[in-house]
Formats: sequence, C-alpha cells, structure tokens
Amino acid sequence: FQEQPPQSETSYSSRGFQFTSADGLYRLQLAGRLQFRFATPADQDPITYDDFFEQKQNLFKINRARFKVGGHAHKPWLKYYFEYELSASRLLDFRVMVEKWPWLSFKFGQWKSEYTRERVISSGNQQMMERSIINRPFTLDRQQGATIYGRWDGGGLANFNYHLMALTGTGIGARNNDDSRLMYSGRLQWNFLGDGVAMSGSALEFYSEPVASLALAGSTNSSQYTRYSSQGGGQLVGFENGSPGQYQMDQFLIESSLKYRYFSWHSEFHRKNILDRETDRLTRLQGWFVQGGILLNPKQAASEGTKLELAGRYALFQPEMELQGNREREYSLAFNCFFNDHLNKMTVDITRFDFEEESVNREASGWRFRVQYDFSF
Amino acid sequence: FQEQPPQSETSYSSRGFQFTSADGLYRLQLAGRLQFRFATPADQDPITYDDFFEQKQNLFKINRARFKVGGHAHKPWLKYYFEYELSASRLLDFRVMVEKWPWLSFKFGQWKSEYTRERVISSGNQQMMERSIINRPFTLDRQQGATIYGRWDGGGLANFNYHLMALTGTGIGARNNDDSRLMYSGRLQWNFLGDGVAMSGSALEFYSEPVASLALAGSTNSSQYTRYSSQGGGQLVGFENGSPGQYQMDQFLIESSLKYRYFSWHSEFHRKNILDRETDRLTRLQGWFVQGGILLNPKQAASEGTKLELAGRYALFQPEMELQGNREREYSLAFNCFFNDHLNKMTVDITRFDFEEESVNREASGWRFRVQYDFSF
Amino acid sequence: FQEQPPQSETSYSSRGFQFTSADGLYRLQLAGRLQFRFATPADQDPITYDDFFEQKQNLFKINRARFKVGGHAHKPWLKYYFEYELSASRLLDFRVMVEKWPWLSFKFGQWKSEYTRERVISSGNQQMMERSIINRPFTLDRQQGATIYGRWDGGGLANFNYHLMALTGTGIGARNNDDSRLMYSGRLQWNFLGDGVAMSGSALEFYSEPVASLALAGSTNSSQYTRYSSQGGGQLVGFENGSPGQYQMDQFLIESSLKYRYFSWHSEFHRKNILDRETDRLTRLQGWFVQGGILLNPKQAASEGTKLELAGRYALFQPEMELQGNREREYSLAFNCFFNDHLNKMTVDITRFDFEEESVNREASGWRFRVQYDFSF
Repeated sequence: FQEQPPQSETSYSSRGFQFTSADGLYRLQLAGRLQFRFATPADQDPITYDDFFEQKQNLFKINRARFKVGGHAHKPWLKYYFEYELSASRLLDFRVMVEKWPWLSFKFGQWKSEYTRERVISSGNQQMMERSIINRPFTLDRQQGATIYGRWDGGGLANFNYHLMALTGTGIGARNNDDSRLMYSGRLQWNFLGDGVAMSGSALEFYSEPVASLALAGSTNSSQYTRYSSQGGGQLVGFENGSPGQYQMDQFLIESSLKYRYFSWHSEFHRKNILDRETDRLTRLQGWFVQGGILLNPKQAASEGTKLELAGRYALFQPEMELQGNREREYSLAFNCFFNDHLNKMTVDITRFDFEEESVNREASGWRFRVQYDFSF
Repeated sequence: FQEQPPQSETSYSSRGFQFTSADGLYRLQLAGRLQFRFATPADQDPITYDDFFEQKQNLFKINRARFKVGGHAHKPWLKYYFEYELSASRLLDFRVMVEKWPWLSFKFGQWKSEYTRERVISSGNQQMMERSIINRPFTLDRQQGATIYGRWDGGGLANFNYHLMALTGTGIGARNNDDSRLMYSGRLQWNFLGDGVAMSGSALEFYSEPVASLALAGSTNSSQYTRYSSQGGGQLVGFENGSPGQYQMDQFLIESSLKYRYFSWHSEFHRKNILDRETDRLTRLQGWFVQGGILLNPKQAASEGTKLELAGRYALFQPEMELQGNREREYSLAFNCFFNDHLNKMTVDITRFDFEEESVNREASGWRFRVQYDFSF
Repeated sequence: FQEQPPQSETSYSSRGFQFTSADGLYRLQLAGRLQFRFATPADQDPITYDDFFEQKQNLFKINRARFKVGGHAHKPWLKYYFEYELSASRLLDFRVMVEKWPWLSFKFGQWKSEYTRERVISSGNQQMMERSIINRPFTLDRQQGATIYGRWDGGGLANFNYHLMALTGTGIGARNNDDSRLMYSGRLQWNFLGDGVAMSGSALEFYSEPVASLALAGSTNSSQYTRYSSQGGGQLVGFENGSPGQYQMDQFLIESSLKYRYFSWHSEFHRKNILDRETDRLTRLQGWFVQGGILLNPKQAASEGTKLELAGRYALFQPEMELQGNREREYSLAFNCFFNDHLNKMTVDITRFDFEEESVNREASGWRFRVQYDFSF
C-alpha cells in the first residue's frame, strides 16, 4: 500500500487511454469499440436449407459494444485484461498473463483459445466484415483454463510461436467442467521468414519484405457440445443436446498467412471428427477457405490517410464427409475504407451462399449485402 | 498506432473526469450518476383504475445507477458516447456523432430520439422529480437508427434546431426491425429570441434576457408496439400484443420552453393516432402539460451555493378522444434543493392523481409522496 | 459547471488508479479484481446430507470479476462507490457517503450491511480462502437502505465504532420492500486497546503492540426470506418460499478480533431465531467459529516481498438447537502466498466437513481441496 503515490503518465495509445505509474509497475488502459451494421436480407450466415427462405429483414443493429480494460500491476510482466460486451451484458475476456520471458509465458482465465487465426483476430481487426462460414463448425471460441505459450527465435528458419492449453471445454461463461476430462489444445506457428504475421487482417503498411506464417493446431475434448460460440457451447445442425461427455471431438487445422507489399493472404484447412458415445456414430467434417486482399490507393493513402482495400474470400464446408454431395459455399467480396486503419473504418460486403444437399436432393442459394461501421476509442 | 504517445491533459469537467491527448484528437470522459428514491404508497404513476387500490409499499430503491463514457477519437468532431444502466445491466445510449459543421451533423446508434423535450432532458437534469403522466403514452424513447441534425443561425428570428431521424421503431435493445418499414421522425425548434433553451430543467442562473424555444415534432411508424419505454417496445392500456406491423402510429407535438430571470417554463401538447390494421380500429389520444418553477433564494444562493426551487406541473391525458369523459390528471408540486446544481440535489415531490372513466362510470384519485437524492460524479 | 477545468493529479493507490482535481473537490478511483479458483470435488460447502454424495467435479472457474469505481465529488467528504460483478452482470455496491465528521457519518444505497466482520471483510482481503459454513445462515449480506455510523475516540478505553442501519431487508437488487416493516440492525465495536482491527484478514505487518476489537451486533426483520446472499434473499434448508412478512428473524452476534506481532485472531458467535408467522413454528439456530493465522517468514518477507502464512479455522453450526445432535462442522487449513499482500496472492486450502443429523440417524463427512489466485489492479 503506497502512502505517497508516485506521479503517473497519461497518454493515448493504440489500446486507448493509458495511465502508467511513475515506477512503471502499474498501468491501466481504457478503450472501447462500437460496431454498427446494416444487413439485408439477414445478417447471419444461412446454416440450413430453410434459412434461405426466411422473410427478408432490413436490419440495422448495434452489433458490438465493447468496453476494454487492460494493463499490468505489481510487475511490468504481470498483465491483465478484461473485455465486456455491453449490449449483451456478457463478460468476454478475463485473464491474467505472466509474460516475464518471451519464450515462456503463462495465461489463465477466459479468452479466445489460440486455435484458428480467423477466430483469434479481433472482430475489429478483420479484413472481411465477418468470419467465414467455416468458423461456426470449427472454432473452439472462448474457453476457460490455462495456457503455456511463447515465441522461440533461434535465428534463420528457427522461429516459432507455440501455445499449449488445458481448458474446461465447456465454453464461455461456464462455471463447471461437465465431466472430469478437460479440453487439450495446441498450436505451433512457424515463422519461416523470420517475422511472423501479426493477428490482424489486411496489409495496411508497405511490407518491403514478405512476412509469413504456417501453423498447425489440434484439439481433443469430450463434452456435451459439438460447437462453441460467443454464447457458449452449442450444437451443430444434426446434433441433439448432449449429456456430459457424450461427444468426443478431435480436430486439427493447417493455416497459412502472408503479407507482402500491399497484399495479404490467409488460408485455413480444417478437419473435425465427432464421436457420439451414446450411439457410436462418427461424423467427419471438413472445411477450408482462402482469402486475399490488396490496398487500392497506397500513394494517395500516404498523404490523405484514408486507405481503400478490396478483399475476397472463398470458403467450402462439408458437414458430413461421407456425403460428398452435401456442401456449403461462400463467395465474399469486401470493400474497406480505413479512415484510421482498423480503429475507424467502414466496410461494405456482398456474399453469395450456395447450399447443396444431394443426400436429400435439394439445393438453394442466395445473396447478402451489408454495410458496417467500426469505431474504436 | 502511435509509438510515442503524446502527453495528455487530465481535468474534471461537468462531464466527469476528462482525459485529452496532447494533439487534441482524443478525449475520454468518465462519469456516473446514482439516484436513490423513497416513495409512498408507490413510485410508478397509476395507469389503471385498479392501480389506485394496490397495497401500500414504503419503498426505498436505487432508481438509477449510470456509468457514462464519452469523448472523441481520431478527430475532434468524431464523438462517441455510451451510457450503461448498472442496476438493470442494460445498455442505454450507444452512439457515434459526426459534428464537423454545426448546421449539418450526423449521428447513428441508439439514443433518446429527439422528439419530446420532456424525454430528451436527462433524468438527472429534470425540474420535477420525474416525467409527467403523458410521457408514457407519447414518448418515442430510445431507438436505434440514424439522424441528420444541426442548428441554423441566420441572425435575428432565423434561429432553428432541426432533427431528421430514420429509426427502427422497435425500441431500445432491439436487434431487428420487425417489418421492412422504418420509423421516421422530425423535429423543428425555433429559437425566436436568438438563443434556444438548453435541454435541462430549472433556471439555475440569472437570465437577464429571456431565452425561449418553440418546437414542432412529428413521427410515423408501423410496428407491433403502441408505446416505448426504457424497457423497449410495449403496449398501452387497452392494446394487446401486436404482430409485426400491426399498429400504425402517427403523432405530433407542439412545445414551448422559456427561461427568464429565475423563472422557467415548459409545456407540451400531444396528439397520437393508433390504427390497428387487423381490426381497422382507430384510437386517438391527446395529452398536454404545463410546468413552471422559480428559484426561491437567488441572493443567498450566490454566496452559499445551495439553491432552492419550487416547481409545479399540471398534466392531462385523454386515452381515447372519442370518450371525452375518460381523463387522467396529474397535479405535482416539487421542491428542489440544489447543493451543486443538477449534479448533487435533493427533491421532494407530492402528487395528486385524478382518474375518471365515465365510459364505465367510475373514478378514483390518490396522493403520492416521494423523496429523491441524485448524485453525479 | 467548470468552464476552465483545473489540472488534476494522477497516481496509483491501493484503490487503483486515482485521479484528483487540482481543487481537491473531485476524485475518481478505478480498480478491478480477478479471482480464479480450482476446486475438487466441489467448490460450495455441502449444506445437506445428499451434497456429500454428489458426483465429483474438477472445476476451474472465474470466481470473481470485479470492476470498482469510487472517489468523492463536490466535497472531499461526499464520497461514492460502486462495484460491479462482471461475470454475473450484477451491481453489488452502490452507495453515497457523507463523511464530514468521523463520529457522525451517513451512508445510503446498497452495500454489505455492517453486521458480521467475516462478511464485511472483502473477499479479496480474507485470511482463509472463503467464509466459514456459518456465514450462509447468519449473514445479512448486502441490503439497501441507510445508516448512521462513526467512531468515537474518548481516549483510553473509550474507543468505539458504531453502526445503526435501517434496511429494506429484501436483499441485494430488490426494488421494493415486501411489507411496510423494515430491517433494523446495529453494531457496536469496542476497541479496548485504543486501536481497532481493520476489516482485513491476516497480520501482514509487524504489530509491536496488540490491536483488538470486541463487537456486539443485532438485527430484527420480518420478510419472506430466512437468509441472504449475493444472489439476494433465499431460504435456509427446511424453509419453504415465504409470503411477504411471513418470517420474523431476530439475531445477534458476539465477535472478537486481534492482531499482535505476526499473529491474527478472529472469532464469532451467532444466535438466530426464526418465527414462521403462518405456522407459529420457532426455529433457533446457533453457530460459531474461531480462526487464527501466523506469518511464517517475517524476516525473509522483509527483503523478498513474498509473505507466507498458515491459517486455520474451526466452525460449528447447529441448524436447530432443539435437536442438539444435528451439527455441521468445518475444519479448514489455508496456506497463503502473498506476492503483494492481499493485492496479488495465491491460496491453497483443505477442508474437512462433518455432518451429523442424529434426528434422522445419519451422518456424512468429506474433504475438499482448492487452489485460488486473486489479483487486484
């Protein structure tokens, strides 16, 4: 308890207003983000055949309203962070990190488990307006637990980021583990050009040398859930509410990411097996996407500050690999107008969805148009 | 992303603690408000005959607990604001404003639609303890959407404030519009003495010259609701839960406001038509109120700081103009003790309600007494 | 409204980052606390026979996630404080205090009523990991209302703290009192060695002179509840949901507290009578605990900063004094590792519960093991 509190420094940083004590041991950062979205005929990706025939809505909504508090306390390497979703009154992130050594860090609490790059990139730093159709079936989303992670830079090709996680596997906000088995997950990212790609979309500065990352990740868990989202554990289409430990889920991904000059690239390939222990039914899912974008006005952007980007994505999801004719496809085109990089931007996107269900001999397709404004402070 | 964050300024302002970056581009304001209320025999205005015969409660409650964050980011004219009700865990305001030109501003998000002055005045800046009985049937309350607004000062009599709004019309917190039609609303305020009356009750300083405003506002909407409140869309007495687009609501108001010396005046006259599209029933509502107050101790207040005010209101509401004998009346008297203007004040009020329902040949009346303490920081 | 806001001071204090205006009239403190807990086979104390035979869970959870805002406004003695539980989206504390004179202060709002020391000590300043088994039946927990309190130091033995409270008696978050009778509670603490024991566990500094407090407290209430917790009013085992005013509760406690050198002591003895007005059944409850702890490494702690403490507790609860053979016992041992006193600490505890219900001729017992990390910023 400090009787004579030292003078602190106050400043605005990319993480919001920042207050630091004179001894450097304490820091508090306050930030927020508001995201508004207009969508027609609907905002959510269609996930069933019937979704293509829902009534049209011209919807305008506050999509995200975040309040973020971070910093460090007691030691410069003892960090904390929490993020609260104000519109849904939901605690999202909530974690303490011990980052004393770059190659060996510890984190515990609740956060987005470091599995897919697509999910780890904040919704405020995305290149496209929203994640792809394969995020829903494959993401581990936010979990509670603990992780060991770090970066090992041995020079030359020997440059890796790793994460080893033990998680409850019951999703955001869960208070208990449903059975005595935890979720285990690991991720290894190889930065073979020496510098990895940060967890942020779009090439908003000039990369004179390419930066690239290749990653492998895997996860195993048994729980009552077959998928996870910001609302916690849930079920994929075709799965019923499970009992504790009913679903054994094993999954992996291969991911690539690159930024060079004003071009950026990102791809992911996913496999996931779900074993229903009660019926012994095994379901194998597969999905992948490729995504790329390029800055349109690098020269004008340097003087004006407003950057324009065009980006596109193709994604394919097979909900049941036994049924090769059942496929969902997404073709997206996004146009970004960065007034102040990711902190103040407008995005317009147009998407075509193709839905084929040969097993029951039907198909559908549809278009979606959206406009979004994202503002960080 | 600023590598070398500039030094900021820290200060206390009427909007709470305020942090501003050295370049002036970023500002953060943190404030809060706590409101405690004691009421007997009940706090809510009676709205039906039966409400007059409810059991008496001596209630003490935390009536409002607000956390407010505002400021600007990236540009001095790019402003943001959010307000969260802590006791109900509800996001109230949530908006971004582009205020580059006084005569042409833009706002989007969720906020109190600029329709009636009575509703727009914050609950912390009211002259009486609470809004009148006609607020419930006529307010548009908070909505999501976008607005163009501004002030045009052409000199002399040519001094106007205007607001043009396109809103979802489904109330606070709504994620979708219920049909493809939006709510449209407009307001024109004429400041015929050159200086308009700010959106705050009571004349707490000496107005050597009178300031006055006359306003006209109107709104049209079709939705499943017949009224709006802080809880979102709802139904007036006598209306059942509607289906999307069932109720066509058209309404207008005429409003006057004046402050001169230590006296303040405020009146509103409302009309509203509700067409039930399923039964073709048209209901016409009317209501008005007049309200005035005067500072009791202007001379002592100058030295002591504590200001005393006496204020009164008369309000009349006719829920169905076809039935002229159905009338609700409110007579209120409020005594304010401003320790630090609206930021720290105590209010005592006494109200008499008269309820006449000639159509079913019954009437009732009752008294209410309340004490409130309102504290902003 | 200050046109020229004065410069403020910014610092880090034991209550988080603190901003004070130049005139000293305004102060804002922002702080937070994160608490993580692992427990096996369960976290909650068993309260029924069946609880001993529940399925084992290895649970990891975010146990507390607090955001705290405090300070003063308008006057240095006009203080405010609110605390919000982020993981449950619940407003905990919410109060304004007038602390102009040490011997006569006023508080209103919602807060932990000053009844038992065990409950008043913040969960972040506890010596043991959690409160004892008798907290559940005897605490008044958080209530809404008003209190007069203060400290009277007449020199020598004449040193007292007092609290006189009028509360709604309907628990946290309640908007109404259920009947017209309030809860009344009082507490008198005698600091007979001149300096009282602060509301914080463990002797973390060297007390060369002993400090001690003896306290008496009592409460009377009639409501629909037989107990209170952070979730509001509820029922003890054996009581059904009540109607307004059904349960008349009268209770008192005797409490002692001492710190000397590196040793700390705390004990409480409770009695509570519950009269069911509908059946005229009177139930008499009794409970007590003793608790003590000692710093293990005072010399090393002075240089290293990390303090180690061993603490133990014995608690006995008799849910029905008529049935002397019905008893619940808790034996707890806790090991604390204070990295930065209570602000950054890890606690390991092991507890044995004994449950005897001679009236139905059965008994059970069980062990519990927990690890907790508590981090304040």
